[in-house]
Formats: sequence, C-alpha cells, structure tokens
Amino acid sequence: MATDLDIARAATLRPIADIAAAAGIPADALIPYGRYKGKLDFGFIDTLQARPDGALVLVVGISPTPAGEGKTTTTIGLGDALRAAGKRTMIALREPSLGPCFGQKGGATGGGHAQVAPMDEINLHFTGDFHAITSANNLLAALLDNHLYWGNALGVDPRKIAVQRAIDMNDRSLRETVLGLGHGANGAAREQRFDITVASEVMAVFCLAKNLDDLQTRLARMVIAERRDGSAITPADINAAGAMTALLRDALQPNLVQTLEGTAALVHGGPFANIAHGCNSVMATSTALKLADYVVTEAGFGADLGGEKFLDIKCRQAGLAPSCAVVVATMRALKMHAGTAKADLGTPNPSAVAEGASNLRRHVAAMRAFGLPVIVAINGFLGDTEAERAALRAALDADDITAVFCTHWADGSAGAADLARAVVAATESKAARFAPLYPDDMPIADKLRTLVRRIYGGDDIELTPKAAKQIARLEARGYGSLPVCMAKTQYSFTADPARRGAPTGFTLPIRELRLSAGAGFVVALAGDILTMPGLPRIPAADSIGVNEAGEIFGIF
Amino acid sequence: MATDLDIARAATLRPIADIAAAAGIPADALIPYGRYKGKLDFGFIDTLQARPDGALVLVVGISPTPAGEGKTTTTIGLGDALRAAGKRTMIALREPSLGPCFGQKGGATGGGHAQVAPMDEINLHFTGDFHAITSANNLLAALLDNHLYWGNALGVDPRKIAVQRAIDMNDRSLRETVLGLGHGANGAAREQRFDITVASEVMAVFCLAKNLDDLQTRLARMVIAERRDGSAITPADINAAGAMTALLRDALQPNLVQTLEGTAALVHGGPFANIAHGCNSVMATSTALKLADYVVTEAGFGADLGGEKFLDIKCRQAGLAPSCAVVVATMRALKMHAGTAKADLGTPNPSAVAEGASNLRRHVAAMRAFGLPVIVAINGFLGDTEAERAALRAALDADDITAVFCTHWADGSAGAADLARAVVAATESKAARFAPLYPDDMPIADKLRTLVRRIYGGDDIELTPKAAKQIARLEARGYGSLPVCMAKTQYSFTADPARRGAPTGFTLPIRELRLSAGAGFVVALAGDILTMPGLPRIPAADSIGVNEAGEIFGIF
Repeated sequence: MATDLDIARAATLRPIADIAAAAGIPADALIPYGRYKGKLDFGFIDTLQARPDGALVLVVGISPTPAGEGKTTTTIGLGDALRAAGKRTMIALREPSLGPCFGQKGGATGGGHAQVAPMDEINLHFTGDFHAITSANNLLAALLDNHLYWGNALGVDPRKIAVQRAIDMNDRSLRETVLGLGHGANGAAREQRFDITVASEVMAVFCLAKNLDDLQTRLARMVIAERRDGSAITPADINAAGAMTALLRDALQPNLVQTLEGTAALVHGGPFANIAHGCNSVMATSTALKLADYVVTEAGFGADLGGEKFLDIKCRQAGLAPSCAVVVATMRALKMHAGTAKADLGTPNPSAVAEGASNLRRHVAAMRAFGLPVIVAINGFLGDTEAERAALRAALDADDITAVFCTHWADGSAGAADLARAVVAATESKAARFAPLYPDDMPIADKLRTLVRRIYGGDDIELTPKAAKQIARLEARGYGSLPVCMAKTQYSFTADPARRGAPTGFTLPIRELRLSAGAGFVVALAGDILTMPGLPRIPAADSIGVNEAGEIFGIF
Repeated sequence: MATDLDIARAATLRPIADIAAAAGIPADALIPYGRYKGKLDFGFIDTLQARPDGALVLVVGISPTPAGEGKTTTTIGLGDALRAAGKRTMIALREPSLGPCFGQKGGATGGGHAQVAPMDEINLHFTGDFHAITSANNLLAALLDNHLYWGNALGVDPRKIAVQRAIDMNDRSLRETVLGLGHGANGAAREQRFDITVASEVMAVFCLAKNLDDLQTRLARMVIAERRDGSAITPADINAAGAMTALLRDALQPNLVQTLEGTAALVHGGPFANIAHGCNSVMATSTALKLADYVVTEAGFGADLGGEKFLDIKCRQAGLAPSCAVVVATMRALKMHAGTAKADLGTPNPSAVAEGASNLRRHVAAMRAFGLPVIVAINGFLGDTEAERAALRAALDADDITAVFCTHWADGSAGAADLARAVVAATESKAARFAPLYPDDMPIADKLRTLVRRIYGGDDIELTPKAAKQIARLEARGYGSLPVCMAKTQYSFTADPARRGAPTGFTLPIRELRLSAGAGFVVALAGDILTMPGLPRIPAADSIGVNEAGEIFGIF
C-alpha cells in the first residue's frame, strides 16, 4: 500500500506563489522558503486588520487510542471539501515537533489524500520556527545563569528558578539534570529540567502573541525566577526580551503551504495539548480569518484538552469565536474505548461501537458546553460496516448528535463533501452562542473544578498540599484571574491513562501549579504528566533515511 | 558613526535570483530562503563536476588580539575587488554561530563596506543549517541513551560514551552536567558534556562531506561509544545515520548570498578554528571553484589554527590546492603583539609595529611551509601613519614579504584593488607548490611535534600520561594515519593565551586526544581549551532588540 509519503510525493504541487495569489496574498507579501513554503510578511498582515473575519470551524478529537482517529486528516479533508464546494477556505494547523516525528507518533501533516505538503519538509525543520523558539528559550536560560555567575546583582534565589532549558527532541535522559558541575568557572551546581520545546512557555507566548509588539511584551513579563522575598525576576530584568524577540521575529510570520488538492494552509506554532495549550498561533488563525470565509483549524487531542484550551485560553485572549465544532472519531477508536484489543479491531462489532460511543458523546457535550453546534465526523476505514454505522447512529440519537461519515483519507475532498455541507449549514444557522466556560474572576481551584465537572465528567479535584499552597500564592500575587491550562494525560478524562470510555465518579489529582505569566495562564499538572517524552524501544528514527535520489523515506 | 548594521541596511540588495544568474546558476537550481538567501540544488551541483576548478585564495589572520584584524572583512573586500577587476569571483565563508553573536565576539559577516548581507539574518538563524546540525547531534545522543534505557543489547559501556549533546549557545553551565537523574524512568545517571554546536563532530562531518552519500558514510562511522572490550559503537549500530542524514539533507546544500557590492558568496558550515577544524564546507568551496575563476575563502583565526587545518585537513581530504595565501593584520593588532595596551592603540608607535610584526612573520612562514606564495594585507584604520607603514615594510623586508595596504572597510572594492592585483599576480605566477605539512603515515605524536616546530615556532610537545596512552590506543586501533586537529588557544602560538608576539623555546602540553572518526581526524587538546564558551559580564545579547519598524538592532 502507498504510504502517506508516497502519496504526498506523487502529487504535483503548485508553486507557493500561485497558492498565495489564489488566497489573495500578493507576491511581494510572500517570503519564500524553498519552492513550496512561504511566510506572510508582517506588513501585509497589518493591511488586513480592517477586514471582517470569516467563520472559524474548530476540529477536535476524542480521547486518543492506538487506533487513531485522524483529526488532522479530517481537518485537511474538510478544508479541501469546503473549497471544492466553492467556499473561500483556509486551513490553520499546528507545526509538527521533531520529537514525536522520531519517536512513536510520527509526523503531523495528515494522511492519505488529505495531507499538507511538502510532507517531509514540514515534519522536519519546516521554516525553522521551533528552532527559533528553542534558541530564544535557551538564550534566556543561559543569560539567567550568566547573571548568577557574574555576581547575581538582582538577588535571584537560585532555589527558585522557574525557566528550564528546552530541546525539540524526545529525550527522557534530560528530564532531570544537574548543571554547573566541575568547578567555579562553570557556575554553581543546580538542578535543571529540559522540557520538550512544545511544552515551553516561550512556545505558548509565541502562539498567543497578537503581533511582534505583543510578543515582546509577553516575553518581558514571563516570571523566570524569584528573589528571596518572593518578588519576580523577568526577562526584562536581565535585558533578555529584546534578543529573544530578535530571535523570534522571522518565525512569528505565519507559514503558508498547500494541501495535496491545492487549498491554502497556514501551519504555524504548535504547543502540545496535554502539557501546553495545544493550538496553532493566534497570528495564523487571525490572518486566515481575514483572508477566507471559512477557516478550519484543529486543537490537539480531545475536546477535553486542546478543544477546551482553544476556547478558554486562545479564543478568550484573542477574541475569537467559532461557528461550530467538529468532533472526529473512528469506529476502530470507539471499539477500543469499549475495551476491544487492537488485534481485534478488524472484526465487526456494533455493540462495542455503541458502548465506546460514550467517550465520543462526552467530547460532544464538552464542546456544547461552550455554546457551539457540534458535528461528529466519522473518519472511515476499510472494513467499517453498515451495522456498526447504524449502532453508532442509535447511540448518538439520544443526545441529538448528527454523525457524518467521511472517506477523505481515500478520496480527498469528495470524501468529506457531506461533512462540508453539515459545517456550512451549522455556520449559516448562526446557532453558535460561544462563551468561555468560566469567568476570569473565578478562583483558580473553582476553575479547575469546573473543568472536571463540566468537561471531564468527574466529581472534584484533589489538591496536594503543595498545589493548594501554590494556588494561594498565585492568587495573592495577582494571577488569580488567569485562565488555567490543564496538563493531563490525553488518553482519559481522568488522570489515569488506562481508563478509557467515559468514566464517572472520579476526582482529578492536581499535584503542582506553574505560572506562565507571559502566556497568560496557570498550568495545573494533573497526575504524572511529563513535560519531556521518551523514545519507544524501536523509535521511528530507526527506519527514517535518505535514498540514492536524495529523497527522505520512513516519515509517517 | 554608522554601525555595520546601519551600512548593511542602507544598501540596496539585488534579488538573490539575479545574483545567482550572474554567477551562472539557473533559476531552477536556486531554492529561495527569503528574498536574499538561497540554497543551491544538489542536482545542479552534480552537473558541474566535469568543469575545471578556478583558483583558490586562502585568507587567514594573525594571532587575534582585542584590536581585531578584520579577516572576514578583508576576504569580502578582496572578493569584491577581484570582481571589480573583471574576474569571475565567488566568496566562500563560514556561517556565524549564535553563541558568539550573543556573547562577546559579535557576528561574522564582515564590516563597513565589505559585508555579506542580509547581515542580521545571516548572523541569526540564516537558513537553519546549524539548527539542523544541533538536531542531528542531539537525536544521535538521545538514540544512544534510549538504547541503554531499553536494555543495552549492544553492550555499550556507559563509562565510555564519546558523543556529547550540543547547543548553539554560549552556556558555561552546560559544560559539565549529570543527566538521567530522578528515577529509573529517566534512565541511569551519567555525566554528559554539552559542546557548542560548532565544536561537535557532526559539524566537522558536515563541513568535510563531499556529497550526501559521503555525509551518510561519515556519520555512520563516527565512534560514539565503546563496548567493554574496547570495540567501537557507531551511529550505524543504532540505526541513527539515516535519520541524521534526513535531518541534514537540506542543510548540506550551500547557501548563496551577496556582498554589499553584489558579489556572490557561498556561506556554509562553520566549525570553530580553535576547537574544531575551522573552515567552511567542502560542498561550498568545491561548488564555488566550479562556478568562478577566483574563489576567496577564509579559515578561522591565524595561519597556525584555521590556516593549518584548512590545508592539512580540508585540502588533504578534498584534494584542493590554493594558489596563494593572504595573511591579514592591522597596525593596531601588531602593536598589541608588542605589548601596547588597548587604550594606547591610537598613538602612533612605529617601533611597536616593527616589534609586533614578529607575530605576523611567523604566520607568513606557516603558510609558506605549505608551499604557498603569501601576501600580507594590512587592513587600514583611520590613524595609521606613514611612519608605521614604513616600519612595517622594513620589518617584513628581511623575510621578503610583500605587504599591501587596504581600505576596503571604508571604501569597499576600491580599497582592496591593490590586494586584488597582488593576488592575481601570485595566482598567475603559478608559484604555488602546495603539499600538506606531514604525510599520512607519520605517527600521531610526530604530527603534533611537526606542528609545534614548523608552525608554532616551539621546541616540542609534552604529553600527559593519559594523552600518551590515548595516542598508543588510537594507533593500535588503526587511526594513526588520520591528520591531527589541534584544539588550542587562538591568542598565542603557545598554549598560554597571554603570550603574544612570537614566543620561542616553549613546549606545547597535550592533555587529551579525541577521535573524530567520521570527520577523519584526531583532535588534540592543548592546555585548557574549552569546547563550550561562556558569556561575558555584559553579553552582546544585552543590547540586541527589535525596533518599532520590526528591524533588528544591536548585532555587531
């Protein structure tokens, strides 16, 4: 069978300037990066600001299983289908991280006949944005340690350093390190964590910044350490924000690429949704809304994680409001939520589909809690049966949920035409009454409790003494009005990745709070969530290479 | 006074496709990165191989002082002047490293009216090559630790891991770390060094690779660890070479930019010359030689470091042979070699110039030891006096050295016209009789001794017991025929950075040998040389920023 990379390579791409022109972007506003990638110039983006916004369509998944649900693939297929239906459409996606690409998850450019291209370039370095973010983060960390080395005039408490180093790699060995060893010339020994770049606050700041000014303002206000008296040390205090902004300047301009069918896609920014806020950049989404009547975007993982954060953090901060939400699932994933083993997914099993639909229903309810019309998109696999489809329809009927069956993986836009029609109908109905889930001024613990009760379907939160103390301190310091960003396993509504389906009667343990003052949210770590993934026994890197024609193979 | 960045920004650059066309590079062979940068396609480079080579001109410095000598500036000025004189010319330079850019040294794109542009983009991320090299190195390191984590089937001795992690940043805190702390899920604790990327073997491999195949072959043969029995573990053993090559594929294509006068320049690769081999990529130099009649390139620091390594490592491996060498100095730097304090450099002092010329004479002798005609280029400063020039001429006469006085910093190509004439004359004389300094089969200790005696002007080497044992082991394992790469302070012919001028009667202490089997050399560490720089009390980053027009300022 043809791999995604084979399909991508067989496609004839159009020069990126042609894609830009069709999207209303003049040649002099496009900064080319290779033949099929480009960045949109800041000056051009400025000229768009008076235009009205198009409709924003949010695509989210269910709780992921090893069966996969094809959320990015569906986002792309839907975008292609809307364009095929005559709508001015842009797609807004996250950039892939190198870590998962060489680890277990593979790339993030869609699949089959619903892909953005050039697939290998986007999955590897793309236009260098993540490298710029890594560099800005690590410059900041080096400048802070350098300040300590030269006498610590600011009185930084070395026990209270919040900024960590970052690397865009899955590297478990760097989760806990001691640096500054050797002797005085290397500084003083202290503990340090390396986070994967997509979990860093600089990434979150980058994705939430409205423009270059806002980027610098947010960088300058990050709280990177404290003094003995508890007062904050910021990048501004060590004159780091300017150099960080210089490193990020070009990166902040959104990246334009195309789908295999030639739909324009902005692929920009990409925090993980389990340990960060999980959506593409405000710069890209806002720009796309000025250029298109329909903008299809995705948030990471399920409605509980990326979806909730997209609405409560990104839309709240940037003043965005989706016209509807699409929740993507596959029959196979639903069966896994009912306990079917991966090896048995090929066997028709309508009752497992009906049972596993409990997970899907809860994700739909989560999106409805924000006032959005919701459409379920079932990403079709060879082997799905009509009996299973009927079982699913029945399971969704009680909640008045419409499911649309799609085949865009195999058929491209034609396979998502029904989904596009449903999205247009939902948008044109103007039924959306979007509002964030909680008000700014709700106490932090209540915000977390609200997420557990209204989104995850649990009973309450359980704060460790440390977490309770941190919440009190954050509120005392004036950060109580920030939204919360839950760092939680993506595999379950609970903190236990093994509990699939739609568990009830659970409490969510919150072990630690971290302030992201630049991004403008408070991260709550639930359970054992890690900010640096490891590599599996046989990493994807094992089979990636370059053939004699100079072509990359093995990326999936 | 206008800064280099001001001058660069005031220049009107030509679209990079025009520069390419003028250099004989068709539009479809140029992969654009922004409007003023591009990469040359592998396929195009393949088509050039049957062409004859142009003349290769090597520019080196003297032992650097805080006064500076302007080696890159002179390389660019000379290139512009050769082109102004009607010669088909290309310049081949190293890419700047982010570390020094934010530290003390500043950028590396020349100065005044002899610069390559766009200055800020080249000095920051450029086309992402160094990020690709950092990623490839760190993927390798992560894959090796991952192999240990999952059971160590290859029997790697965790005490004998040679590969280190890398970061393109000056960060002394990372010189000595312990990673894998925490608990079993993070791996086992072990020591690890972070080298600056430009000191990594992956950088050296990248710069010495003749093509993509050769890159993969070299990566695959790196010795990254040993088993208990002393046998080598390579990237091939852990299936890392393919993924590393995939990460480096696009980066290996040379970068085209222009000087402020519109001369084509390939800026590609950039290992440090004190701790690595110090010259730009073989890919770029070889390609430039196919496209131009004159290729002006530089090697890092003095003739003793980058110059020697250019000839003994790069030219030896790649089969290159320069037509002549240019040694760059300033009156101010010569005065510092005679002991003049920096504050007194503005005072005319012919006798200090004459005395400091001893350093220059030894660098000239070093280049002559390779059979090359040598021209001295004096990079003029406002305030240089005729009396000083006369003193210098007299000091050089005894050795029959021709000095050419240049003003390209202020005047561009016109200021280096005399230097261009001298270079053309030396090239057309066909006087060069290039040969590496020592044969491949000379024992390692004798190679080091040869450098000390014939290049540095000292008496002998002094091996620590550890170094002596390492040499014996390297030779027993079959690496005795590799050239040596001296890691030594750039500030002195000795291992003591304070000993300026032309010291005699010294021995060079060699404390450690490191094998670079992929690059194809043995690194000898002399004295206290570090592979990770620190930041100064007031780093350059302190004053770098972005103004309201979105322009970067403060890079120098």
